[in-house]
Amino acid sequence: MDIHFLSVIPEVFGPYVNASILGRAQAADLARFFAHDLRDWTHDRHRTVDDAPFGGGQGMLMKPEPFFEAVEAIRNSSEVPLTTIFLSPQGAPFTQAKAHELSGKPGLLLVSGRYEGMDERVFSLADEVVSLGDFVLTGGELAAMAVADATVRLIPGVLGNERSALEESFEDGLLECAQYTRPAEFRGMAVPDVLLSGDHGKVDEWRRRNALERTRRFRPDLLEAVSGEVSDRGR
Amino acid sequence: MDIHFLSVIPEVFGPYVNASILGRAQAADLARFFAHDLRDWTHDRHRTVDDAPFGGGQGMLMKPEPFFEAVEAIRNSSEVPLTTIFLSPQGAPFTQAKAHELSGKPGLLLVSGRYEGMDERVFSLADEVVSLGDFVLTGGELAAMAVADATVRLIPGVLGNERSALEESFEDGLLECAQYTRPAEFRGMAVPDVLLSGDHGKVDEWRRRNALERTRRFRPDLLEAVSGEVSDRGR
Repeated sequence: MDIHFLSVIPEVFGPYVNASILGRAQAADLARFFAHDLRDWTHDRHRTVDDAPFGGGQGMLMKPEPFFEAVEAIRNSSEVPLTTIFLSPQGAPFTQAKAHELSGKPGLLLVSGRYEGMDERVFSLADEVVSLGDFVLTGGELAAMAVADATVRLIPGVLGNERSALEESFEDGLLECAQYTRPAEFRGMAVPDVLLSGDHGKVDEWRRRNALERTRRFRPDLLEAVSGEVSDRGR
Repeated sequence: MDIHFLSVIPEVFGPYVNASILGRAQAADLARFFAHDLRDWTHDRHRTVDDAPFGGGQGMLMKPEPFFEAVEAIRNSSEVPLTTIFLSPQGAPFTQAKAHELSGKPGLLLVSGRYEGMDERVFSLADEVVSLGDFVLTGGELAAMAVADATVRLIPGVLGNERSALEESFEDGLLECAQYTRPAEFRGMAVPDVLLSGDHGKVDEWRRRNALERTRRFRPDLLEAVSGEVSDRGR
């Protein structure tokens, strides 16, 4: 998979790519990453990407022209078709299901805005607009890296073992169960006996019940989707 | 505000801090950032932070000891009280309201796990457990930076103008209205006439209505919280 980042601070992507699962995917030839500077598609001496908003108001807005030129140039030079995704609080909240969907694409172009926002016409370039959540970041860069991370780790072969991605939170609509490693007792806190028992049936049952209990306690909203199963098991 | 990051890849924080609003906050003496390497609190030659899970299963789990030592050491050496926040899909979803709450704290310690997860006992160190959303990242680092970014930009004086943070998405329970800058027409797409009219009353009315329409179209779930106001204005 090819992943292109477009931003006015392209220097933030490399350090995360190199230190994270993204670097491992790149080393294994399962993904390639490209960071593009939006200012490379400006034509004035100050490399201006923003301007005052029509209708008044404080703050600056990102101009349409550099985005159009950049997105078209990156798409045209790409070896694979790119799905263009804008990161914006206006978008659809990013989910694990979306990460699965994106992990099957040949290429992504993840576009980050900064300042007060982008000229609305820029969004006509987007195949999708994605939001990381109901909070406001200064720019889309962290969201772009989060989408890349969540997506790339689902590409077969990227994680060390194939099972791990499927046992995680949200994959079955539940939070993950509590997990423990050595020591069996630490500062008066003991690992549940069943996990030390060697009885795999009981371990699996405990893990399923624990995941349900944790989800009920911390994220009851997630249980609506699996409520049939919950009431089956709760009785 | 002092913000401490604790992670096994502490090198990812500096580049984002320096390129982002966080660096501006630091330059203005409104925030300080510290990145700590969890492996500094290991005691073996391989600086081991993970171990196999009790009860079986694939993948590795982060050990409790380094987290306990690290969190206690960082808290003890801090000049200000620290609110310790673990980033985990198990946590409460991060919101703009939480960012406002955190922006009033003197210090944060943002703890990121990696691998399959953390030994459950580690969470006893947390004042709060926060999740960025219903997706799985390979580690908490991007979530930690997102929490820092969303929080620090709300500290008075960090943003260039004080108004801008209050006009954004989610601050009034709605998405932000569409915004436009020059040129007034671009590739056949024109800026709405009202924004060029100079009539501030009409501009404000258009913006409010546009924000409502966009929220209704893209995020109807957000409208539940402001439904009284919506029906007042819709008639």
